[in-house]
Amino acid sequence: MSSESVNQDCLAWAARDPSGVLSPYKFKRRAVGIDDISLTITHCGVCYADVIWTRNQHGDSKYPLVPGHEIAGIVKEVGSNVHRFKVGDHVGVGTYVNSCRDCEYCNDGLEVHCEKGSVFTFNGIDADGTITKGGYSTYFVVHERYCFKIPDGYPFASAAPLLCAGITVYTPMMRHKMNQPGKSLGVIGLGGLGHMAVKFGKAFGLNVTVFSTSISKKEEALTLLGADKFVVSSDQEQMKAGAKSLNFIVDTASGDHPFDPYMSLLKTGGIYVLVGFPSEVKFNPASLNLGMKTFSGSLTGGTKETQEMLDFCAAHKVYPNIELIPIQYANEALERLVKRDVKFRFVIDIENSLK
Amino acid sequence: MSSESVNQDCLAWAARDPSGVLSPYKFKRRAVGIDDISLTITHCGVCYADVIWTRNQHGDSKYPLVPGHEIAGIVKEVGSNVHRFKVGDHVGVGTYVNSCRDCEYCNDGLEVHCEKGSVFTFNGIDADGTITKGGYSTYFVVHERYCFKIPDGYPFASAAPLLCAGITVYTPMMRHKMNQPGKSLGVIGLGGLGHMAVKFGKAFGLNVTVFSTSISKKEEALTLLGADKFVVSSDQEQMKAGAKSLNFIVDTASGDHPFDPYMSLLKTGGIYVLVGFPSEVKFNPASLNLGMKTFSGSLTGGTKETQEMLDFCAAHKVYPNIELIPIQYANEALERLVKRDVKFRFVIDIENSLK
Repeated sequence: MSSESVNQDCLAWAARDPSGVLSPYKFKRRAVGIDDISLTITHCGVCYADVIWTRNQHGDSKYPLVPGHEIAGIVKEVGSNVHRFKVGDHVGVGTYVNSCRDCEYCNDGLEVHCEKGSVFTFNGIDADGTITKGGYSTYFVVHERYCFKIPDGYPFASAAPLLCAGITVYTPMMRHKMNQPGKSLGVIGLGGLGHMAVKFGKAFGLNVTVFSTSISKKEEALTLLGADKFVVSSDQEQMKAGAKSLNFIVDTASGDHPFDPYMSLLKTGGIYVLVGFPSEVKFNPASLNLGMKTFSGSLTGGTKETQEMLDFCAAHKVYPNIELIPIQYANEALERLVKRDVKFRFVIDIENSLK
Repeated sequence: MSSESVNQDCLAWAARDPSGVLSPYKFKRRAVGIDDISLTITHCGVCYADVIWTRNQHGDSKYPLVPGHEIAGIVKEVGSNVHRFKVGDHVGVGTYVNSCRDCEYCNDGLEVHCEKGSVFTFNGIDADGTITKGGYSTYFVVHERYCFKIPDGYPFASAAPLLCAGITVYTPMMRHKMNQPGKSLGVIGLGGLGHMAVKFGKAFGLNVTVFSTSISKKEEALTLLGADKFVVSSDQEQMKAGAKSLNFIVDTASGDHPFDPYMSLLKTGGIYVLVGFPSEVKFNPASLNLGMKTFSGSLTGGTKETQEMLDFCAAHKVYPNIELIPIQYANEALERLVKRDVKFRFVIDIENSLK
C-alpha cells in the first residue's frame, strides 16, 4: 500500500459523484512511452464540459473524474521516439489525446473526427483501457501528436483557453472562409466561445456585431472586445433593421432560442455556424432556401489547425480575456460558470496553487 | 370591344378562382420592346407551383391566373436591341422574367436573388405594374436576359422541365461541388426534382442511393433512372446500415419527415441540401455538429447557370422523364400531381393542343 501511495504522484482535483464537487485526489499516470511526452501543467482553462461531466449530465461519467481539457505547461520528459518536442518546451493539450492515426480523417489532421472515435482528454477510454484524467492536475502524459507548441512569448494562461474555446470557433470560421476582410459577422452569445469569435472576427478584419439577450453586455462587447456593434436580440426593431446585413453568423449560445430571426439577418449565400448545443434546432425552410443560406455545425478542430490557430493568435496578438483562479476556487468557478458569471474564461493557476 | 377582342391574341388556360380549375382564356401580351423577344410556345412543363398558385395556397393569387414556368418554344420576333437571339432560335424561359439588373446578385448572374426581388413568370408584378402570365399559353414576350438557348437537337419537350425542376437541383449540386466522380449521393423523394437529382448525380459520376417511403418506386429508381441503390426510408435496419455512408444528400421531399435519421447517413463534412418546403426543419444539433455537417438551402438558379445546365444536359444526354399531355388534360394532371401520380414530369404539348 505504501509503495502504491508513493507512485500516486499526480496531484489533482476530482469529482467523486454526480454532485460534481471537486476535492483533492492523487493518482498515477502511465509511464512515458516512446512517442509520449510528459508535461508539468502550469495552467488549465475551465470549460462548460467540466460542469457537464463532473455532474454526470450526459449519464456517462466515470468517477473519480478529473476534468480539464485546456491544458498548458512545460515539457519535463520525452520518449525516445519524440522528435517535435524537447524538455523545456512550452506546450498545450486540448480536448482529445488519442485516435486511430490511420483513417482518412486522422491522415488529414482531423483526428477529432477519427473513424474509430477520438479519445477525449478526460472521462475517455484510452487505447489501453484506462480512463483518461484531465488537466486539473500537476502533470500530464500524452502522445506527442496530440500536443501543441505554444509560440515563444505567448503566455501559458492565455494559451490554455485557445485549446478548446479558441479552436472550436476558429475551425468553422476558417472552414467557411470567414477570414475575408470587410465582410460582416454576427456573434450570438458572449461567453468563452463567443468572445473568441469576436476576437478572431476582428483579427480577420470583419465588421462584428454581437447579439445578446442582455444590454449589460454592451459595454464590454464594444469597449473590451472591440466589436463594432451591439444588438439586444429581444429588440425586434433592431433585429428588423439588420435584415440581410450579415455574411456570417457564429452561434455560440447553448441555451434555446429561435433561429428564424437570426437567419433573416443573413445576406444571400450567408453562412450560419452553430457551435453550441441547444436542445434542438428548428427553423422555417424558407429561412434557409430563400437566399440559399447555409447552416453548418462544428466540433473543435484537428491537430494541424490547432497549431495554426495558436500561431495565428501569437502573430496577431489575440489573447482570450481570462480570470485567473487558484484550484481551491474551482468549485465556485464551476458554479459561476453555470450562472454565466465569468469574463470570459476561468483559468486555473495550477503551478502556484496545486501542491 | 371587337378591336380589343382582336388584340387578345394570346390563347391560354387560366384559373379564375381558388378552385384552381383551368379553362380557356384570351389576353394580350405587351408589345415586343427593344430588348425583348417573343416566342411561340411549343411546350410547358407542369410544376407543383402551378397547383399552389392556381389554388391560392399562399393567399396571394391574382386571377385570372395563367400558370406555367417551364417554357420552351421558338423565337418569332426580336426587338431592335436583341443580340443573343434571332427568329427561329429554340429557346426556354424559366421561373422569373425580370429583375433590377443592377444589384450585386444580378451582376453576378444570380438574378433570382435580386435585391429588389425577381419577377416571377406568373402571378408576379412586373416592372410596368402588370401581372405576369405563364406558359400555359400560345406565346410569350420576355426581356432576352431571362431567355435561354435550347441546344441544337435537344427536344423542346425535354428542355421544358429543366427550366424549373432541373435547375433547382443542379444549382445546389454545383454550388456544393457534388460533381466529384466517385462520391456518394442520397436523393430523398422521387418526383420531378428528385428524378433530376438522380440523373445529374449519375451524369456527375456519383454513386446514387434513392430514399423513398414506398417500395413501389424501387424498380423505377434502379432500372428507369439508373440509381445504384434503393432504400425504403421506414426500414430502420437499412437506414442504420447506411450510417455515415454519404457525402451528399439532396432532399426534394416537400412532405414533413424527420431529419435526424437522414443526417446520420452523412459522412464527416457531409452536405445536406434542402430544395423542398416542408412545414419546418427540425433536428438535434448533435446531428449537425458531430461530423461538422452542413445543411443548406436553395431556390432555383441564376441565368448564367441555367444556360450552363441546359448545355450540360445536351452534352451528357440528360433528359427528364416526361408524360406528354394536351392542354385539355391540364386539370387532371394537376390533380394527379397532388396525388404524386406522375413519372416524372407532365409536359403540355402546347403547339399541338392549344389552338
